[in-house]
Amino acid sequence: MEREHISMVFDSELSQLRQSILIMGGKVELMIANSIKALIDRDTALADRIIAFDHEINAAEIAIDERCLEMLALRQPAARDLRFITIALKIVTDLERMGDQCANIAKRVCELNEEPPLKPYIDIPRMAHWAEVMVKEALDAFVRGDSELAVKVCKDDSFVDDLNIQIQRELLTFMIEDPTTISRALKLNYISKSLERIADHATNIAEMVIFMVKGKDIRHTIA
Amino acid sequence: MEREHISMVFDSELSQLRQSILIMGGKVELMIANSIKALIDRDTALADRIIAFDHEINAAEIAIDERCLEMLALRQPAARDLRFITIALKIVTDLERMGDQCANIAKRVCELNEEPPLKPYIDIPRMAHWAEVMVKEALDAFVRGDSELAVKVCKDDSFVDDLNIQIQRELLTFMIEDPTTISRALKLNYISKSLERIADHATNIAEMVIFMVKGKDIRHTIA
Repeated sequence: MEREHISMVFDSELSQLRQSILIMGGKVELMIANSIKALIDRDTALADRIIAFDHEINAAEIAIDERCLEMLALRQPAARDLRFITIALKIVTDLERMGDQCANIAKRVCELNEEPPLKPYIDIPRMAHWAEVMVKEALDAFVRGDSELAVKVCKDDSFVDDLNIQIQRELLTFMIEDPTTISRALKLNYISKSLERIADHATNIAEMVIFMVKGKDIRHTIA
Repeated sequence: MEREHISMVFDSELSQLRQSILIMGGKVELMIANSIKALIDRDTALADRIIAFDHEINAAEIAIDERCLEMLALRQPAARDLRFITIALKIVTDLERMGDQCANIAKRVCELNEEPPLKPYIDIPRMAHWAEVMVKEALDAFVRGDSELAVKVCKDDSFVDDLNIQIQRELLTFMIEDPTTISRALKLNYISKSLERIADHATNIAEMVIFMVKGKDIRHTIA
């Protein structure tokens, strides 16, 4: 009876952990979407809010880390649950670094808003959308233990990489044709690279999920 | 007596864990140095060996991960040891991603070696050297629990960031003055960014060490 009670408490803690990670992920997704909204709308106030909001993501990482440590110490989980919690520890680090990238994007947006717009943005919003979906799907795959969805995320990463290369090339033609665009083009290039890094973090999460579900490690076999 | 024996076994396991992380770190440091050596010497064979060697880093991550999980399951560590092991889990992920960046550098080196050299390299080797020292010091700080050394690593990151910006600017002038250099300049730019990411990973490790030593989290307070 006592053991059954502890097991129920632990199940409820695991379910709360899943929930906390989804909530943290939702905040990161919103940061991605808003950082690009701030770019398109030239909304410096929104960019400033994103920079300030990064603290919430940092706090979420620390809180979830502590929660995982408590569960490891008090519940002494084995096998599957142990793997789940240790992967949760790694995932929150990826999420926190995505938050950093969003704050970096927002800083570049603030700078860009002080100069005339360079060009209409088409590929950057598309890239941001992909990155956002990848984060959502990687976390869904994690909480549901869905390796097929995780494999999809890994494959989607190549679209984001291709978009990044395309954006870099386009910005380069701007810089060559008109050197007065260089400073702005470099900032847009930086934003594109940040989105690519966010997608990389989502891919890292997806690879860990595949590892968690399949039991063996295929983290390093997907090109 | 039995408890004492278990404690001695656990201490020896912890010491082995520290050693494995230092060995893995040493391999990554060698990958950084060799990837830049392959660039300077235009040594495609060495670059190919680095790309192949990345498997060893991946294997080391998996092995240390598994070791940590076993220790968590069998020894049920508390407090300081628990924190040490969970941070070890995160650190090997950073090391593995540094290995990926080295393999990426080596791939660009292979491509660059098929074209005439663009310029003598001065800042890139300097940046690589900083990155290598940061990795070494971050890991030394981890195994020794030395928060002062970890703070130094965090501060050093700004030198690498500055060098990266300087390199990007210089490459840009090449591209503007002579569009036939664009493809090579972009590859060098990519290498510079990879070194910057390696330094970021070292900084991430150092921040976790400060967290581990001080008990409270200052991961997000160092600018």
